[in-house]
Amino acid sequence: MTETTHGYSSDIPAYTRRLNRIEGQVRGVSRMIQEDQYCIDVLTQISAINKALHSVGLQLLEQHMHHCVAAAAHESPEAAQAKIAEATAAIGRLMKS
Amino acid sequence: MTETTHGYSSDIPAYTRRLNRIEGQVRGVSRMIQEDQYCIDVLTQISAINKALHSVGLQLLEQHMHHCVAAAAHESPEAAQAKIAEATAAIGRLMKS
Amino acid sequence: MTETTHGYSSDIPAYTRRLNRIEGQVRGVSRMIQEDQYCIDVLTQISAINKALHSVGLQLLEQHMHHCVAAAAHESPEAAQAKIAEATAAIGRLMKS
Amino acid sequence: MTETTHGYSSDIPAYTRRLNRIEGQVRGVSRMIQEDQYCIDVLTQISAINKALHSVGLQLLEQHMHHCVAAAAHESPEAAQAKIAEATAAIGRLMKS
Repeated sequence: MTETTHGYSSDIPAYTRRLNRIEGQVRGVSRMIQEDQYCIDVLTQISAINKALHSVGLQLLEQHMHHCVAAAAHESPEAAQAKIAEATAAIGRLMKS
Repeated sequence: MTETTHGYSSDIPAYTRRLNRIEGQVRGVSRMIQEDQYCIDVLTQISAINKALHSVGLQLLEQHMHHCVAAAAHESPEAAQAKIAEATAAIGRLMKS
Repeated sequence: MTETTHGYSSDIPAYTRRLNRIEGQVRGVSRMIQEDQYCIDVLTQISAINKALHSVGLQLLEQHMHHCVAAAAHESPEAAQAKIAEATAAIGRLMKS
Repeated sequence: MTETTHGYSSDIPAYTRRLNRIEGQVRGVSRMIQEDQYCIDVLTQISAINKALHSVGLQLLEQHMHHCVAAAAHESPEAAQAKIAEATAAIGRLMKS
């Protein structure tokens, strides 16, 4: 069952709503630039989008660890190590972005 | 003319294209979650979006400094100081996001 | 034995070396400012220190997950959830810093 | 006079104090690891150091813009553009770190 594999299926509607809102915010930035709005206000909006995306990323990560990492920990230390190394690399990419 | 004040008007088509692409990437993340794709791949995509947004923000900032901050520097030290303090605060928000 | 609890004891000498180097880099920034070196060079050095600290943080996090989170996963789902929520909050703080 | 060129000479004592404190915090992290303190607490401390360094970097940047960028704006548009491109690159490195 794919639903239980990745651990976030029960929250799909909530994620979809959040990402729709973020998509609207990106469209808003595009409109602000077309209307030649004040640059600092555009930057503030971009910061808000990045924050919202980081927050979505953190929640996905938490559910990933709860499902995939914990499952791997029950399987074998090697499986856990592989999943944890993979998650850490993803965290590193998020931190740099 | 407001278009020349903020200094990015000649680049509006390029910004619009970049933001359209980012909007498509956000929609892609939403679709990945609905299709229950692997969490780490979703996180990688979110990192890519944040990077793209930071890059748009940096370019806006550079043009803002070139136009507004430089103009304020020609006006008065006080005007420059106010613009620079405002830009620094915006940079601080970008860095935390 | 507390040493095995947190999972990083075997690496203490390596961490100590890395943090000594970072400490030296912070001292270097202080010296650069006292010598009135060029601001952009100081900023480049500060970025390098932040990167080095993030890298130490990521490695600590990886070991923490490998030891504490995996141990909690063997204990109970509730224990795992608590550890994972705690780790996610720490990741969120790192990302904002 | 080099002291006035980079614009932060009057604040050298304050910067030195802040960097001494940061140096002490890095030493504190090293000690926490040697004492095998709880990993999450070490990460919290690392986040605090990064925040403090970012804050020093932002203040340096603000002074740099007030002095060097504003001076370049009075010199020529080309000089201003070069300084602003340089500052933007430094901001990009800070944001990624």
